[in-house]
Amino acid sequence: MGNEELLAILRQSVAERDWQQFHTPENLAKSISIESSELLELFQWAEPSNIDDVKDELADVLTYCFLLADKYDLEVERIILEKLEKTKAKYPVEKSFGSSEKYDRL
Amino acid sequence: MGNEELLAILRQSVAERDWQQFHTPENLAKSISIESSELLELFQWAEPSNIDDVKDELADVLTYCFLLADKYDLEVERIILEKLEKTKAKYPVEKSFGSSEKYDRL
Amino acid sequence: MGNEELLAILRQSVAERDWQQFHTPENLAKSISIESSELLELFQWAEPSNIDDVKDELADVLTYCFLLADKYDLEVERIILEKLEKTKAKYPVEKSFGSSEKYDRL
Amino acid sequence: MGNEELLAILRQSVAERDWQQFHTPENLAKSISIESSELLELFQWAEPSNIDDVKDELADVLTYCFLLADKYDLEVERIILEKLEKTKAKYPVEKSFGSSEKYDRL
Repeated sequence: MGNEELLAILRQSVAERDWQQFHTPENLAKSISIESSELLELFQWAEPSNIDDVKDELADVLTYCFLLADKYDLEVERIILEKLEKTKAKYPVEKSFGSSEKYDRL
Repeated sequence: MGNEELLAILRQSVAERDWQQFHTPENLAKSISIESSELLELFQWAEPSNIDDVKDELADVLTYCFLLADKYDLEVERIILEKLEKTKAKYPVEKSFGSSEKYDRL
Repeated sequence: MGNEELLAILRQSVAERDWQQFHTPENLAKSISIESSELLELFQWAEPSNIDDVKDELADVLTYCFLLADKYDLEVERIILEKLEKTKAKYPVEKSFGSSEKYDRL
Repeated sequence: MGNEELLAILRQSVAERDWQQFHTPENLAKSISIESSELLELFQWAEPSNIDDVKDELADVLTYCFLLADKYDLEVERIILEKLEKTKAKYPVEKSFGSSEKYDRL
């Protein structure tokens, strides 16, 4: 199954519940942030004891990301690859090798 | 291109820069949260004026999500679908139609 | 100077710029979250190299917290103390000593 | 009660539970971000129905902010005021009046 088919399934589940009304871009952006914090909470004081929790929370973040991408007619795969090109240009191998510094401090 | 091929490209870019050392699960979880807030910042006071900014920030969140999934040998598509089944069970159509209430308040 | 006097100064700065219109409770809640991620970003890959950055980002989080408290006529000091009582009740010393587990797992 | 006295009470509660070991600056920064998202969650799809929830979540954010300030020997009131001076300089009244634009776009 490709991401397009996956999106069709997600869209259908949203439509069946009449949840499109809540899925404004802003609400989806908030939801991505909220779910990503629930993911982070698993790492708050120690490593997560249960990988299934990571799986669920990460899936929540991804689901809202896919839905927001869909709102703007963005293809998940394409925007990841396009951003990767920008990152590679900002972080050339010879300057960034083994370094976690931001590009403006390399 | 499928998500597996996409991941191979992401992995290579990380390896070329010797960045695996920074990509602990915890650091990736932090990064997902940080990038999702940069996305939210575009909606802080108003709607985003530039869709390209949304594209870039959403791509950052997604990239770290893919990398974290990879750390735990989780398939993005599969975990989204498995979580969707849980969501559907928690939010049956007849109870959740048109409602944004949490499942424990339906 | 007490927190009340501090708030008066913050309120005046907001009023001078006619920024009350942007400071809905929801926007303030978003802003607290956004600024707290900028604080977290200082710890993304390593410890912060510059304490002044921590000072500035922490101040941003606190400022929006004070402004949101003000919106709901909540006193910062009082709500911290009231929450502390709840935390103490949920985490009795004999059960929580030296443990980072959540109260429902103690 | 001033913030110094409040901090003494917070410190004692932490010490009684031997929780200092968990309160590294990084963990406190994560906690501020996590709690601020729980606050934001109250605004995810609609306005919060219960002000007491806002009170509790805001108190959690503030508590961790106070504890992190304490780690770095920063005074809450002082850093808020010092940051306010920076904000005022970046956002002069005549340029920022009634605008939610970032200082670099004013």
